[in-house]
Amino acid sequence: MATAALNIASQALDLTQPLSLDGGQRLDGVRVAYETYGRLNPDRSNAIMIFHALTGDQCVASPHPITGKPGWWLRMVGPGKPIDTDRFFVICANVLGGCYGSTGPASLAPDGQPYAMRFPVITIRDMVRAQVAVLDALGIAQLHAVVGGSMGGMQALSFAANWPERARSVLILASTARHSAQNIAFHEVGRQAIMADPKWNGGDYYAAGKGPEAGLAVARMAAHITYLSEEGMHEKFGRKLQDRSAKTFGFDADFQVESYLRHQGLSFTDRFDANSYLYITRAMDYFDLAEEHGGKLADAFAGSTARFCLVSFDTDWLYPTAESRTIAHALNAAGAPVSFVELSAPFGHDSFLLDVPALDRVIAGFLGR
Amino acid sequence: MATAALNIASQALDLTQPLSLDGGQRLDGVRVAYETYGRLNPDRSNAIMIFHALTGDQCVASPHPITGKPGWWLRMVGPGKPIDTDRFFVICANVLGGCYGSTGPASLAPDGQPYAMRFPVITIRDMVRAQVAVLDALGIAQLHAVVGGSMGGMQALSFAANWPERARSVLILASTARHSAQNIAFHEVGRQAIMADPKWNGGDYYAAGKGPEAGLAVARMAAHITYLSEEGMHEKFGRKLQDRSAKTFGFDADFQVESYLRHQGLSFTDRFDANSYLYITRAMDYFDLAEEHGGKLADAFAGSTARFCLVSFDTDWLYPTAESRTIAHALNAAGAPVSFVELSAPFGHDSFLLDVPALDRVIAGFLGR
Repeated sequence: MATAALNIASQALDLTQPLSLDGGQRLDGVRVAYETYGRLNPDRSNAIMIFHALTGDQCVASPHPITGKPGWWLRMVGPGKPIDTDRFFVICANVLGGCYGSTGPASLAPDGQPYAMRFPVITIRDMVRAQVAVLDALGIAQLHAVVGGSMGGMQALSFAANWPERARSVLILASTARHSAQNIAFHEVGRQAIMADPKWNGGDYYAAGKGPEAGLAVARMAAHITYLSEEGMHEKFGRKLQDRSAKTFGFDADFQVESYLRHQGLSFTDRFDANSYLYITRAMDYFDLAEEHGGKLADAFAGSTARFCLVSFDTDWLYPTAESRTIAHALNAAGAPVSFVELSAPFGHDSFLLDVPALDRVIAGFLGR
Repeated sequence: MATAALNIASQALDLTQPLSLDGGQRLDGVRVAYETYGRLNPDRSNAIMIFHALTGDQCVASPHPITGKPGWWLRMVGPGKPIDTDRFFVICANVLGGCYGSTGPASLAPDGQPYAMRFPVITIRDMVRAQVAVLDALGIAQLHAVVGGSMGGMQALSFAANWPERARSVLILASTARHSAQNIAFHEVGRQAIMADPKWNGGDYYAAGKGPEAGLAVARMAAHITYLSEEGMHEKFGRKLQDRSAKTFGFDADFQVESYLRHQGLSFTDRFDANSYLYITRAMDYFDLAEEHGGKLADAFAGSTARFCLVSFDTDWLYPTAESRTIAHALNAAGAPVSFVELSAPFGHDSFLLDVPALDRVIAGFLGR
């Protein structure tokens, strides 16, 4: 019943034209997999596009296709929820380069073999290009809003800067207008962990059945630390031991935090393609919205008539409040209407995905009717 | 001439008694390699023991035995320097479990084969036990001071708590009285990176000539990020490209920060044993000085008559100022004389090793005459 009320639809769009990429290549035969929730109204004015984060997917409010777990934003998207599917038609597409149905390194190239590392390096703007094609196919000239957290926020910013007439409202959560040196550094650790795994094999592992699981797990472990806050980890784990009363003086996971991290790493390998991880992190590292617009961030928003809302979290050290403030200043300089709030939440960067009632209120209020 | 004035002496002590370890084992045939600088005065009252950090060594002010680079604290230790070898006799020993001459996993067990993972899991206190044996052998009943930064600070704290009559002054830099969940998490990422490398081979790689270099490099890269500050990385690297004018749309090290990190990782494998990295990080994770003393940190210092000085750095997010403050509060509660200062420096955790003139003044002033 709940599912019926949501009107979930899983679809895929095969682009009829090659996709022109920032790297200069043209990619043929691009497929974009997407989910929709709710109903598009007759004048096609009630659509909201949600952009997912690095390891997210299009199943915002539907069960995960591999793990069967509830959709990653089920608490935010649904009938009567802050992003209300009784009123809005919600669209979320798997990013280009991803591994949930959209064309990515695991997809077959025209020669019938997986692209693997022959897949072109893509950018955040390339991802958005593929998603704009979905809007075109659905006949949606202008969205009620674009919404995204983390890498989703980068896509929403890129959308607002490059397709300014196609969204009336732009909601950015825990994101940044450019990847910092530290952000790049953490991603590079993850990539090197994957590439150090002999089973990565230069990216050619699809035929072997098993990929670089050990390397991908290490990459996920390192990244996962950056998604939490020091305080949150202390609250949740501290120095508590895992199912034992004393240290074992060995290398088993004595501490709960070790056991938790190992689980995060291992379970990730069941649901994500290592090459996709390489390409998507690279796209994030390349993201620098000001650079794309002559070096001045305000110029990125010169053509915008949208209203903006920015939300940061006080314990997010991956994309700290200062990054959102930089965007807010640029929007002010461009004369765009913007509201900006830093919320207090203990969950670090992941706060935008978790139980933060103040966030629900901000989103419901901003998206309005 | 400078070297002669320093009176460098490289020595090794073979313990005649087995070393009793916190894990319950007794380790036979322990060797402790150490360097000394300056001259011990007739009443043996002018000795300072320096404890090195995780990947440090005993060559405080002498060339590194593998890289040939200057000693890691040459700026602080020498004639006329803040730790003045014209007045003090400075001792630094390679930690138990290390790979610079003291007994560790690469050492030969009684069966003539390397210990590898048969080496017992050790603690910070075990490391200090081995170093106290050096003081006994040198006939030094009481040190003028113990000094340590980072893991060296943990050793200095352990020394002060467990051998309270053997140092008059205790100087702790950028350290902590217990490893936090986040600290443990980062170490666990490094250990898993090493163990994921097939060349680790359960620790048995010494006969192969080559160890788990790829895994160790990834471990070092992840750790290295935690030694720097976000601001420092931004200042030094930002999003600057490495020897190129534009992004390559590939997976080479386009950004300077990537190139720098890769170099840090690769060069580390030439100078450090992967199994030592496992054992030493484990010892750090196990460190919880309060736990060793009934759960109350102040009780760890109940028997102390030493004076303490604590220094933290405002950009250190590995062992932030709050960790030093906790120690200062415990020392206050124990009635110990303590001075505590947070210094401003852009280098993150590594500040204690770098050019921070205010630190030189604090150290020179505290060690006095």
